[in-house]
Amino acid sequence: MRTFSNVWRCVALAAVFVLNVAHSADAFAAVRKFEMNIEDTRITLVEKQQYHTFAFAGQVPGPLFYVDEGDQIEVNVNNVTALPHSVHWHGMLQKGTWKMDGVPGTTQEAIKPGESFTYKFTAEPSGTMWYHCHVNVNEHVALRGMWGPFVVRPKKPTALEKTVTKEFIMMLSDWDSKWSSKPGFGGVPGDVYDFFTINGKSFPDNQPLRVNKGDVVRLRFIGAGDLVHSIHLHGHIMKVAFKDGFPLANPISADTILVGPGERYDVIFTADNPGRWMIHDHVDSHTMNGDRPMGGIMSVLEYNEIKPDDFYDWKAKKFEPNFYYEESLKKGPGVYTNDGFKGQAVQ
Amino acid sequence: MRTFSNVWRCVALAAVFVLNVAHSADAFAAVRKFEMNIEDTRITLVEKQQYHTFAFAGQVPGPLFYVDEGDQIEVNVNNVTALPHSVHWHGMLQKGTWKMDGVPGTTQEAIKPGESFTYKFTAEPSGTMWYHCHVNVNEHVALRGMWGPFVVRPKKPTALEKTVTKEFIMMLSDWDSKWSSKPGFGGVPGDVYDFFTINGKSFPDNQPLRVNKGDVVRLRFIGAGDLVHSIHLHGHIMKVAFKDGFPLANPISADTILVGPGERYDVIFTADNPGRWMIHDHVDSHTMNGDRPMGGIMSVLEYNEIKPDDFYDWKAKKFEPNFYYEESLKKGPGVYTNDGFKGQAVQ
Amino acid sequence: MRTFSNVWRCVALAAVFVLNVAHSADAFAAVRKFEMNIEDTRITLVEKQQYHTFAFAGQVPGPLFYVDEGDQIEVNVNNVTALPHSVHWHGMLQKGTWKMDGVPGTTQEAIKPGESFTYKFTAEPSGTMWYHCHVNVNEHVALRGMWGPFVVRPKKPTALEKTVTKEFIMMLSDWDSKWSSKPGFGGVPGDVYDFFTINGKSFPDNQPLRVNKGDVVRLRFIGAGDLVHSIHLHGHIMKVAFKDGFPLANPISADTILVGPGERYDVIFTADNPGRWMIHDHVDSHTMNGDRPMGGIMSVLEYNEIKPDDFYDWKAKKFEPNFYYEESLKKGPGVYTNDGFKGQAVQ
Repeated sequence: MRTFSNVWRCVALAAVFVLNVAHSADAFAAVRKFEMNIEDTRITLVEKQQYHTFAFAGQVPGPLFYVDEGDQIEVNVNNVTALPHSVHWHGMLQKGTWKMDGVPGTTQEAIKPGESFTYKFTAEPSGTMWYHCHVNVNEHVALRGMWGPFVVRPKKPTALEKTVTKEFIMMLSDWDSKWSSKPGFGGVPGDVYDFFTINGKSFPDNQPLRVNKGDVVRLRFIGAGDLVHSIHLHGHIMKVAFKDGFPLANPISADTILVGPGERYDVIFTADNPGRWMIHDHVDSHTMNGDRPMGGIMSVLEYNEIKPDDFYDWKAKKFEPNFYYEESLKKGPGVYTNDGFKGQAVQ
Repeated sequence: MRTFSNVWRCVALAAVFVLNVAHSADAFAAVRKFEMNIEDTRITLVEKQQYHTFAFAGQVPGPLFYVDEGDQIEVNVNNVTALPHSVHWHGMLQKGTWKMDGVPGTTQEAIKPGESFTYKFTAEPSGTMWYHCHVNVNEHVALRGMWGPFVVRPKKPTALEKTVTKEFIMMLSDWDSKWSSKPGFGGVPGDVYDFFTINGKSFPDNQPLRVNKGDVVRLRFIGAGDLVHSIHLHGHIMKVAFKDGFPLANPISADTILVGPGERYDVIFTADNPGRWMIHDHVDSHTMNGDRPMGGIMSVLEYNEIKPDDFYDWKAKKFEPNFYYEESLKKGPGVYTNDGFKGQAVQ
Repeated sequence: MRTFSNVWRCVALAAVFVLNVAHSADAFAAVRKFEMNIEDTRITLVEKQQYHTFAFAGQVPGPLFYVDEGDQIEVNVNNVTALPHSVHWHGMLQKGTWKMDGVPGTTQEAIKPGESFTYKFTAEPSGTMWYHCHVNVNEHVALRGMWGPFVVRPKKPTALEKTVTKEFIMMLSDWDSKWSSKPGFGGVPGDVYDFFTINGKSFPDNQPLRVNKGDVVRLRFIGAGDLVHSIHLHGHIMKVAFKDGFPLANPISADTILVGPGERYDVIFTADNPGRWMIHDHVDSHTMNGDRPMGGIMSVLEYNEIKPDDFYDWKAKKFEPNFYYEESLKKGPGVYTNDGFKGQAVQ
């Protein structure tokens, strides 16, 4: 249906896992190279609701960049779709590298279909960051899944974050089903968002967060969509420890936090209360899958100590242990794709 | 029109004020028992705009639970409506009592029509909390008035809150008149909120906040609806002292604060500026009653020292002294219904 | 088309620059008098999109009031439109002057067409404040441009703000083109905002923010419209230093901040990273001009050290140096009109 460079697609399929880590002049800095396609990809939000995306490495969210502060990042981006794109590394200071900031018409020309662009920059500052397209953001970011997590590990972690034993990444976004199969269109005034996802999936097709009693848990929230979400965790007190990657002088305690578009909040809590606990958007209308209730941005914090009950909606749930990139984050710095997020190539 | 258990309705009407306070093992902890129906109830938002709700104890907001930190709470909930429900005690930690958290399909089965469920838990932590249904929240919480205030008095109050002489509870919510007489429907993508209330009433049918010069005033805001509200108080500096019940290390001064769905903010200010002062939502479109302007989420802070002027909209206002539960809060811990919030039973 | 007092219009055109500064009893306080019309005025948001406003002094935003804390303010407001209005001085405490607070039906009668009202009050407290109409705010504030900046210079500036070398005022607002030529109507439930502006202009018809390397920059954000905006600055760390004019005990670092209706945030950052950097609303749908993408609330922070590139959208931009009132703010206290914001009188 769409024309694209078959050469690039083949190169990319071969190269996508080529990750070259080498040491730079700074003894602590690695050079992290990655080859990343932007591909027409059909993903499934929930049940039968599919969506045509322009997916980084064919997945939504895109690959996790988990790097050390000061690392040299080099990402060659191949645009294998039929529309222009770019990549903005949201939060990266780009000190001395402003032309790597990824804004078409301001810092570079957009990457045309069939073309490539290599982004080179230093990972600075540390914290929960993300990346996304900066062309026609009303469609490409809001509706086409062009975003992924970018986490920079600090040289000097705070005392609080040193206590963390398990962490989860949660990217929040919104979709209007009307445009699901009309790439290049949508994201216009009057649109009605009717699907709402964590890491590209709506309840009940997303995953629980599994912890053990005693874990110190860090949730990294990223507002990747167009709406403000109000995230409520049951049964625990969240300490809001970081805003946009920056530590708060005095963490704020909360059970419900607003996460706006582009914002990130890192919250830390102690898993001291075994049970099954909802975590969900308290914007009631964001718990819909189309016109069906009790879906959208909802999940369950499960303690491994608790056995399923008959009434539990997810008692037979097939568990996917890396849905929140929690397994990748355990492995330390690297660039991680995730098969669970991959969609189907659109021919 | 709807079938329901007449037995339960009768029991409830008789039992609703049965409040048994007894001392538990903890010398400071009381056992607070309450019997609470969920009833099909028609309330009036403003002027002729009625709304079919599923009301706790037949009122919107529901009864005020004002308890001490550590109290043992026991609430028997009777579902006298034709749809399933539950009660989530938003903010309560439910330490060791996760099956009392009120989430159908996760912590319990929903309470079916004609059935009951008894919630037993410890009031912890302290602060401004609330309760609401957790079934089909897009309709039941957003549109059917299934919420009430739950205030836990701290064992160790902060220095700032000790100075308070008068307090008011303000629950903010939003309504789409299209679904007003269609219980079991609504709360779907594309809905347009056209009525906006404080404690279930829109201006001018809500009430002023009356203070004396010298009062130290605490406003307890609760985001009970689906939208973010931006509350502006004229003529005074609000100290944002608590977020979700938790004290801020450094209270933030503000004249306008965002209150999102599920969030609570406690602000404290000194009544040192006699006059008549607006307090209202600065989201301009939330000051509408349908298509008529200057309604919705607006009220007036009145100093008793100031006499009415001819131009004052509320110069002949019939004052109801407990509209913000300010009289109940003066009485100390207890469970308080409020005749002013009661609607008409729907037969 | 509309009837209005020709007498008042003539007086106002003559008097609008009559600014009388005199010293009051307080050695540090000046008396600042200003004559200000409210006029039917057609402005251009972007390209061919015009809008009928009720403009203060015939401009949107209105004149900048830049005064010292403690100054005596006296503004005679002449309503030259066909509808009632008032002026609320948002953030001013109005100690002892509550009838100057500008709320019709509460503190005064609305100013009828052809009539005047003189507001007299003390400028207190200091900080980024603003003024706006308080009649039918759903239309007059949200859609008719009835707002302007009011900045009060503190007697005791904070250490951080003393370092500032350049400052910019950014008033954020939203428009529904459907009501552009229907004054007296609009601002009703179901409205769809389709234009989004900074200081009344959408990208690309607004202006860059120009700085030199080494500047310490203060941005004064004012939420003047109906929506929450999420402002993202590329390449720099913003310190959120003031909320509603009040200094934060601990400034919060951020790259993205939510600005709600009525709120003000002052952020300070060091211009230490020469380049061209986007500053824009991260609510993706707010970067639209009607149905065309990459407009709305977007601008570019330009370092004077950087030369234009061929790919730069604004390479031939005609620069207007006072678009953010940055030139006026350099001059010190005064009341400043701005020809760049003036529209065409509607006869």
